[in-house]
Amino acid sequence: MFDTILVANRGEIAVRVIRACHEVGARAVAVYSTADADSAAVRLADEAVHIGGPPARESYLNIPNVVGAAIKSGADAVHPGYGFLSEDPWFAEILTEHGITFIGPPPGVMEQLGDKATARSLMAAAGLPTLPGSAPVATAEEAADAAREVGFPLMIKASAGGGGRGITVVDAPGDLESAFRRTRDDAQMLFGDPTVYLERRVDPARHIEVQIVCDDHGHGVHLGERDCSVQRRNQKLVEESPSPAVDEELRARMGEAAVAGALAVGYRGVGTMEFLLDESGEFWFMECNTRIQVEHPVTEMVTDVDLVAEQLRIAAGEPLSIRQSDVRLRGHAIECRLNAEDPARGFAPTPGRLDVCTPPGGPWVRFDSHCEVGSVVPPHYDSMIAKVIAWAPDRPAALARMARALDETRIGGPGMAVLTDFQRELLDDPRFRRGEHDTGLLASRG
Amino acid sequence: MFDTILVANRGEIAVRVIRACHEVGARAVAVYSTADADSAAVRLADEAVHIGGPPARESYLNIPNVVGAAIKSGADAVHPGYGFLSEDPWFAEILTEHGITFIGPPPGVMEQLGDKATARSLMAAAGLPTLPGSAPVATAEEAADAAREVGFPLMIKASAGGGGRGITVVDAPGDLESAFRRTRDDAQMLFGDPTVYLERRVDPARHIEVQIVCDDHGHGVHLGERDCSVQRRNQKLVEESPSPAVDEELRARMGEAAVAGALAVGYRGVGTMEFLLDESGEFWFMECNTRIQVEHPVTEMVTDVDLVAEQLRIAAGEPLSIRQSDVRLRGHAIECRLNAEDPARGFAPTPGRLDVCTPPGGPWVRFDSHCEVGSVVPPHYDSMIAKVIAWAPDRPAALARMARALDETRIGGPGMAVLTDFQRELLDDPRFRRGEHDTGLLASRG
Repeated sequence: MFDTILVANRGEIAVRVIRACHEVGARAVAVYSTADADSAAVRLADEAVHIGGPPARESYLNIPNVVGAAIKSGADAVHPGYGFLSEDPWFAEILTEHGITFIGPPPGVMEQLGDKATARSLMAAAGLPTLPGSAPVATAEEAADAAREVGFPLMIKASAGGGGRGITVVDAPGDLESAFRRTRDDAQMLFGDPTVYLERRVDPARHIEVQIVCDDHGHGVHLGERDCSVQRRNQKLVEESPSPAVDEELRARMGEAAVAGALAVGYRGVGTMEFLLDESGEFWFMECNTRIQVEHPVTEMVTDVDLVAEQLRIAAGEPLSIRQSDVRLRGHAIECRLNAEDPARGFAPTPGRLDVCTPPGGPWVRFDSHCEVGSVVPPHYDSMIAKVIAWAPDRPAALARMARALDETRIGGPGMAVLTDFQRELLDDPRFRRGEHDTGLLASRG
Repeated sequence: MFDTILVANRGEIAVRVIRACHEVGARAVAVYSTADADSAAVRLADEAVHIGGPPARESYLNIPNVVGAAIKSGADAVHPGYGFLSEDPWFAEILTEHGITFIGPPPGVMEQLGDKATARSLMAAAGLPTLPGSAPVATAEEAADAAREVGFPLMIKASAGGGGRGITVVDAPGDLESAFRRTRDDAQMLFGDPTVYLERRVDPARHIEVQIVCDDHGHGVHLGERDCSVQRRNQKLVEESPSPAVDEELRARMGEAAVAGALAVGYRGVGTMEFLLDESGEFWFMECNTRIQVEHPVTEMVTDVDLVAEQLRIAAGEPLSIRQSDVRLRGHAIECRLNAEDPARGFAPTPGRLDVCTPPGGPWVRFDSHCEVGSVVPPHYDSMIAKVIAWAPDRPAALARMARALDETRIGGPGMAVLTDFQRELLDDPRFRRGEHDTGLLASRG
């Protein structure tokens, strides 16, 4: 195992990784921007290195500063968390050149899968079902030509995108040109790369993703699926495992496809194959996330596999400790994200200082957060400040447990709004309770 | 299921029961003394009834006030928690007379098992191994006569005692008379009943207890054992399941003995059969606790059985949902009690007001507590203010997880001391780490 691991992230995932480091016996080094000087990650880590000003580009996205912190602290490995530099092959390569292990897939694999159009082709070649789609389109004319092949409704997607950002839905030919230009502009702004491509849209659909784990010795397993169909503008808000829409047979088929795709490209580490599942039970590959995901806890709760510790062990060269035949989804787990956002003002972020932070507790409730009384939620980063996870033997009991957990949660501060009540109300939605919702649930609720 | 359940307790167990009520869809009514007016139980319950002044005899032990609160609030059942009125058959009978279900065993069974000398006889008759012991002894002369039969070292135990209170160890005949008088005085003061008896002392021994669950239809199962050998003056401080000293074969034998004893007396509900286990692997019945126990979470974590919800279901007449063949101990769970006590001053309680309360979080860590920032820890009651529970696939990983959980826990206030650091240091004790400790561990550490 590594002696010292630098955690190149912030917020709840930095805390999650520090916890895993300590549990496997490694030192954890935090990095922090000026805005995060008093954060929980800094307090919990064995050492903390300041890496720049509050804007992410000056700190958490600043490769020289992060690499410098790793060298300075004597780290022999870097865990990138999610977001920021977690899917940047260049970052991984620079670390490798300095003899520091990047905890993630090989840079070449990340690069291939990070380009969504390339990933589509690779996965189609590996036998995964993909939706009708196009190669990258550079002009409105190319887009119009491709659209005739793909058919409407369709999506224009940023090649460099991911995580639900850089996607525009186009229902009819008349909307195509303006949507094309807007998505290119967004892609350039968000990802520094204007490349976009078209993909057929499935609606209604459920967002089902498969957790995969591959070691450096050619072995891979899947840990079942997560249902992330509760989304607002392609941003996940509630996740659960197993999916109410997936039975044993479908789970096996999706899982085998996901592992086959991963092994075909020489994947290493944990990763997620995202699929759309339509009403008829057919599924299509969407994208591969080459990192730990926000919603990983629900898989942990139903499989007993510590995904972050597994990342550390795989990066240290250990073979997988799990065989596919050992994997069972036990009971049901659900996660609600608590964002510092105001539903009454279009989910606008509400940064501030927490003057109350009483997390839920008791049996089978997990709270992953970096927040405590006095914590500052800066305006510069993601607005998610906590995740509540509930486990129970079955889905109705898990929903009941989540309801009581949210009922007892108190997180807030002056001028702040947190999605606690929003999530609590969502639990009572009849379609959600029946497990019959799709990705249109929140939009239909208005 | 019941419509409204009155929770006749305070502190963390009141919160635990309120959570279970809400998860099964029942209303929860809290009771509170003047000292607990601002407590978490009051906040989390659907209704709260004031039952008297801070001293327990004026409130939580005040049967007319508690019964009155149950009637006034329209409760159809009362959960007594542990301590206070939880093992008082008279309380159970009065509730029954008012048509309110007491969530626990039948009063007659409680009465028999509550008298430790009677319980010994009943369990011996049911075939459980018991240590050499005496009938109740009323005078120093009777004690001396009985001691010649029992042999030294021995214990003088209060018949009405339990939970490790009202016990004096006597190593040699010369100490017997003064110990007899002191124990009688203690028994009168603590339990209102001076009756004591003698029992042979096993030393070294481990404290191993078996969790039993019996329904009202003649079925009983055991949920494996808890090892509670880490004790200070007979007060448990750390508990775990499974025990490092119990293998499958011994677990089956102890479990079968426990269930046989329970069924022999017509037990109903959850309960605990406490045993001593000696170095040779022989075990002896000590006492039966006819209520939920502080350390129940470690059993919940390794069996997936919600013991408090099970209490509610059994009291509502439902048959057991578990068969013995379904019970598996999965992984390892450990609990550390956080008492507001100062180890540097003989573990003197340190009441006060918490100005910091940052519980541990993250994967496989459970926090059962009624405390939050601003909570008052009154001087009138038990000093335990929180329990940290960690689960992992095996014991070394559970210990590592508990260590990081305690490292991140911050609970305290002006003038207060909490056992967080004490428990953290204990985790590094070599005998404890190897699982080779006995009930003398803390005394031997000085």
